[in-house]
Amino acid sequence: MSLIKEKKGTWITYRPDIKVLDCTIRDGGLINNYQFGEDFVRAVYDTCVEIGVDYMEIGKIASPKVMSTKEFGPWNFCLEEDLRSVVGSNETPLKLAVMADIGRTFKENIRPREDSVVDMVRVAAYIHQIPAAIELIEDAHSKGYETTINLMAISKVSETDLDEALDIFANTNVDVIYLVDSFGTYYSEQIHRLVKKYLNITEQVGKKVGIHAHNNQQLAYANTIESLIMGTSYLDATVYGLGRGAGNCPLELLMGFLKNPKYNIVPLLKLIEKYVKPLHLEMNWGYDIPYMLVGQLNEHPRTAIEFIKNDERDFVKLHNTLLDMQP
Amino acid sequence: MSLIKEKKGTWITYRPDIKVLDCTIRDGGLINNYQFGEDFVRAVYDTCVEIGVDYMEIGKIASPKVMSTKEFGPWNFCLEEDLRSVVGSNETPLKLAVMADIGRTFKENIRPREDSVVDMVRVAAYIHQIPAAIELIEDAHSKGYETTINLMAISKVSETDLDEALDIFANTNVDVIYLVDSFGTYYSEQIHRLVKKYLNITEQVGKKVGIHAHNNQQLAYANTIESLIMGTSYLDATVYGLGRGAGNCPLELLMGFLKNPKYNIVPLLKLIEKYVKPLHLEMNWGYDIPYMLVGQLNEHPRTAIEFIKNDERDFVKLHNTLLDMQP
Repeated sequence: MSLIKEKKGTWITYRPDIKVLDCTIRDGGLINNYQFGEDFVRAVYDTCVEIGVDYMEIGKIASPKVMSTKEFGPWNFCLEEDLRSVVGSNETPLKLAVMADIGRTFKENIRPREDSVVDMVRVAAYIHQIPAAIELIEDAHSKGYETTINLMAISKVSETDLDEALDIFANTNVDVIYLVDSFGTYYSEQIHRLVKKYLNITEQVGKKVGIHAHNNQQLAYANTIESLIMGTSYLDATVYGLGRGAGNCPLELLMGFLKNPKYNIVPLLKLIEKYVKPLHLEMNWGYDIPYMLVGQLNEHPRTAIEFIKNDERDFVKLHNTLLDMQP
Repeated sequence: MSLIKEKKGTWITYRPDIKVLDCTIRDGGLINNYQFGEDFVRAVYDTCVEIGVDYMEIGKIASPKVMSTKEFGPWNFCLEEDLRSVVGSNETPLKLAVMADIGRTFKENIRPREDSVVDMVRVAAYIHQIPAAIELIEDAHSKGYETTINLMAISKVSETDLDEALDIFANTNVDVIYLVDSFGTYYSEQIHRLVKKYLNITEQVGKKVGIHAHNNQQLAYANTIESLIMGTSYLDATVYGLGRGAGNCPLELLMGFLKNPKYNIVPLLKLIEKYVKPLHLEMNWGYDIPYMLVGQLNEHPRTAIEFIKNDERDFVKLHNTLLDMQP
């Protein structure tokens, strides 16, 4: 069938360009203000090394001048000493990533790469923040880091603006352009179309495309493997889907799918058993009706998170509230 | 892109051939031996009517001579008086379906359609039960029912045997041939290929194809909509995914996706809020690591169900047990 002609790999082999990026701590930290204990972060790190994950995003690199170190835990700031207390000098094949938010991370927060255990800086930006994003990307690049741009909330952006944004990033030194489904709103057909759009631009300039999906409609994993088939190379996932709201693409599903023999699901099963299932009882992320509704209606999850936090039950009322928010 | 040429509908319109079949009671009954209270079954029935679902599978039509009415509740037998106590004479557009298992349902259990509120008999069979399945199908057809064949566990069947089975069913009076992913093991590429195989045969003889998916790998909904795009017409789903093990394609996700204005998600949200979320705390279906493992390794969920029932925790041991079962 014709899909075969378009896809980038086969069923039985594997593509060496595929990179798995675990963002458990970074995305999970959105739930608990990055107050994970050091033992948990170390367990995730050790597991990522053991199972052959390519990158681990260990947190955000926010400025302590902008965000309170009383309110937010160490993985919101990723100070070098905190990182090293977990990873030492990281003498492993696992690369470390941190996320930089526009307005919360500044050039002064990013030290030269030779002075850091960090390998990659991921810049997260909305469409109106592109000039600031480019400044951070170029700064991190010049300091020796791999870089990505994670352009968020594109399901709220016009096609014309998105095309222009992609053209702009194609002309920067960024290494990877991420397709980010912030609201967990996309279906596979939309993912197909978007991946083609991103690849059309990146393939001309030798950049890669990544995917970061949310599970509001139980499509995070499905869309991740659909995008992989179409040609994305960088795949974001979190252990047991740990992440804000409906969570993310579960790493264990991806590990079961990928055929590269360097990946190994067994230590991940142990991590889930020992650390993540107990944490789930406390932190309670994952598919639920309020998250489904914001996904279906292409809205930010904050309305659903608030609803659940307040122990509200009236789904119909929430549905009506969300309909009132439609443009 | 070329996928567009193959797909059967567009993004904004809807296909009138699409039929949604709710199998909440029938699949959910596998968890609790069909001991649902009449009020719950009535609430599901009323909701199916209100939200525009096309068929409701209200249980199994097992012989009380073969299965114990002490052990199993009324929805395992679907005696006419029990059905009527919920649906009256069902003066609604909703059609009612029952499932007939080979070896548990006999011709004597199926009364003439004019004496029943049932509209459709769905025959569930394994590959070695095809002659018996055909007997039941032809009997139900001759009595005036719509019929389906749900050929199970095809992920364990050779391609040659499956081709032969489909050819055989093409020459019966069955109306719908279901693609059943019993073990929740298929990825979208496999679903694509299988739907094409089923359609190649059914389109020549004027039959429709249905899909019944399980959520072991969080792909039940994704695979259901993938199959729909490729041309399946009958879509099985259950409220909040209620079903044995990892459960099924969640009806609320499907209702949010389908564009036919006759479908209405609001009463479904009320049903989930009032009845199904409380039931979930008791019955506890849905995605979990043991179900994921059987899905990834193409095994029957019974090993995972047993593991969870016994409150076992050692996922690595389960993984090894399942690997030992591989052919």
